[in-house]
Amino acid sequence: MQPLRVTLGDRSYPIHIGADLLDDAGMYSSYVASRSVAVITNRVVAPHYLQRMQRALQTAGARVVPVLIDDGEQAKSWAVLDHVIDVLLAARCGRDSIVVALGGGVVGDLAGFAAAVYQRGIAFIQVPTTLLAQVDSSVGGKTAINHARGKNMVGAFHQPLAVIADVATLDTLPDRELRAGMAEVIKHGFILDLQFVDWLEANMARLLARDRTALSHAVRRSCELKAQVVGADEREAGLRAILNFGHTFAHAIEAGMGYGQWLHGEAVAAGMVMAAELSVRAGTLRREDGARVRALLARAGLPVRGPALAVNRYLELMQVDKKTAGGRTRFVLLDGLGRASLRGDLDPGLVRDSIAAVAP
Amino acid sequence: MQPLRVTLGDRSYPIHIGADLLDDAGMYSSYVASRSVAVITNRVVAPHYLQRMQRALQTAGARVVPVLIDDGEQAKSWAVLDHVIDVLLAARCGRDSIVVALGGGVVGDLAGFAAAVYQRGIAFIQVPTTLLAQVDSSVGGKTAINHARGKNMVGAFHQPLAVIADVATLDTLPDRELRAGMAEVIKHGFILDLQFVDWLEANMARLLARDRTALSHAVRRSCELKAQVVGADEREAGLRAILNFGHTFAHAIEAGMGYGQWLHGEAVAAGMVMAAELSVRAGTLRREDGARVRALLARAGLPVRGPALAVNRYLELMQVDKKTAGGRTRFVLLDGLGRASLRGDLDPGLVRDSIAAVAP
Repeated sequence: MQPLRVTLGDRSYPIHIGADLLDDAGMYSSYVASRSVAVITNRVVAPHYLQRMQRALQTAGARVVPVLIDDGEQAKSWAVLDHVIDVLLAARCGRDSIVVALGGGVVGDLAGFAAAVYQRGIAFIQVPTTLLAQVDSSVGGKTAINHARGKNMVGAFHQPLAVIADVATLDTLPDRELRAGMAEVIKHGFILDLQFVDWLEANMARLLARDRTALSHAVRRSCELKAQVVGADEREAGLRAILNFGHTFAHAIEAGMGYGQWLHGEAVAAGMVMAAELSVRAGTLRREDGARVRALLARAGLPVRGPALAVNRYLELMQVDKKTAGGRTRFVLLDGLGRASLRGDLDPGLVRDSIAAVAP
Repeated sequence: MQPLRVTLGDRSYPIHIGADLLDDAGMYSSYVASRSVAVITNRVVAPHYLQRMQRALQTAGARVVPVLIDDGEQAKSWAVLDHVIDVLLAARCGRDSIVVALGGGVVGDLAGFAAAVYQRGIAFIQVPTTLLAQVDSSVGGKTAINHARGKNMVGAFHQPLAVIADVATLDTLPDRELRAGMAEVIKHGFILDLQFVDWLEANMARLLARDRTALSHAVRRSCELKAQVVGADEREAGLRAILNFGHTFAHAIEAGMGYGQWLHGEAVAAGMVMAAELSVRAGTLRREDGARVRALLARAGLPVRGPALAVNRYLELMQVDKKTAGGRTRFVLLDGLGRASLRGDLDPGLVRDSIAAVAP
């Protein structure tokens, strides 16, 4: 299949989507010949795929430096970043080396940020092995680690050379993570494409049963939608902010519960229900469309209620969110299903009421 | 005086050079109105200038968040970076906040890198208060921290909004640091401008006596020369590497002696003598021009011999240098005084002999 293309001038790159791409040496050969390639992956993914990928990279002419990190959100830390840098320096990786991120969103975020800052920036390739990473975090060049005061507070925009999304890797993904990834697939429909929402409503059972044809379509359409937005607004100056639909609430849920208790996609699902509720209360979304938001997420097995934190705690945690401008938190609202916009002028009472309605 | 301009497309920026600019609110007003401005400075610089600058920024309409860091190279660390990020988050600085780096090269490198990665990148202004920072590190967008395995191994290219070089701040600079800064001034002559070398030979006594007219000329010409190179090669793909004349050796000296024992400019001076010796031995520089290199540095009160590390130790320390390509260390050689080029094909014996001749 033809690769998708993310159009960003001299930072444009292809997204390859299909089955069994991960150990296809031809995928890598134009990038890695006679270079050092640091494959950053974790202890859960490595047993499945590291050796297969390593052989493919070596066939393509690379010297492979494997770097193992811990599984889970806590790997997005200064300590793990320092460890990666240390391994690369010890292996004498130079500026012409390439980082390959083999794993989910955490691996991609950390490895991408390591590539962004190693010797002031080296190239990297994303090989996402979770649905969340394939449809969302691997596209768009956002990289980051977490800080005690907030998620993704330290990072960089650093575009990959290429993304290789091998849908065969989803076979080994736990159900809970498959569903969490589905939250971002659904999000792309809610904010950008009503037809895709219709399709998801009709095909959710097939997707959860891991029908490979259905999954390939969902990954491709999600990446297309996200690539359009990223291509139009690489640095999140405006339009790109709509991709954060539900995320202001989600960040509060993740920070309030402690990172890792709720999966990111689960928090986004509950956050989207809050944002839809806010859209209904602000008058931009019909109540029946708000119900469709909740119903589709529920059908995907995702949480449609927030955790029982005090409303003031939600507000406090949201205050530090990156979409704050001039001290005021801004929200992405739905203007009907399939359309979204960023709003900074909302009555704080509406926000409180929307949280209270969804997180009692 | 008209500001210089560093030409980098939509990342172009002005360099203002003159006396008493630091507390001129007009310098800041177009950037900072109704924004949060984090002034990052150290405990040595703060007593001299922080209050004056703070008043000017407030007059220009900013909310000022001062951030004090330790003095010296050890501030270029993960721990200090984390501290800066922490203060900015606690003060609720958003993506529209601005970092001001008030201090020497260490403050500029650290503050610039903090700005590069804070919430994936915010704007910053350089206000260099040492000669080294005014003529070198504040121009070109290089930011970094150090790693146990090497200097500046973690960083980013992040261009400032503006550079404000107030030559009046050089009055409070210790002699040793003034001389260390002079090493980079002289370097710009060696690699790019024979006439400027002539001028420096004729005016070194005035410069060391802090004649303000002479200093202003030296700062301006240095910035002009560096800005030309940076404008032609922002990401150090080729030409920009000549700015590293002497630096491969200098990094080895700094790493081998422990950071902070030799000032960067002192190590660069000894490194330039080694690189000039290598140029003579490689046949690209006449021996009498090699002697001019040594003589001008000596006249500036700079070291013209390296520390007595074993030659093998030098080579080992140089191996990890960022100019290594395909495992081979590359060197900047002088092709006559005022011209330089990058060479990767040198006989390793010449390198050994050049080190041995200068660091017995």
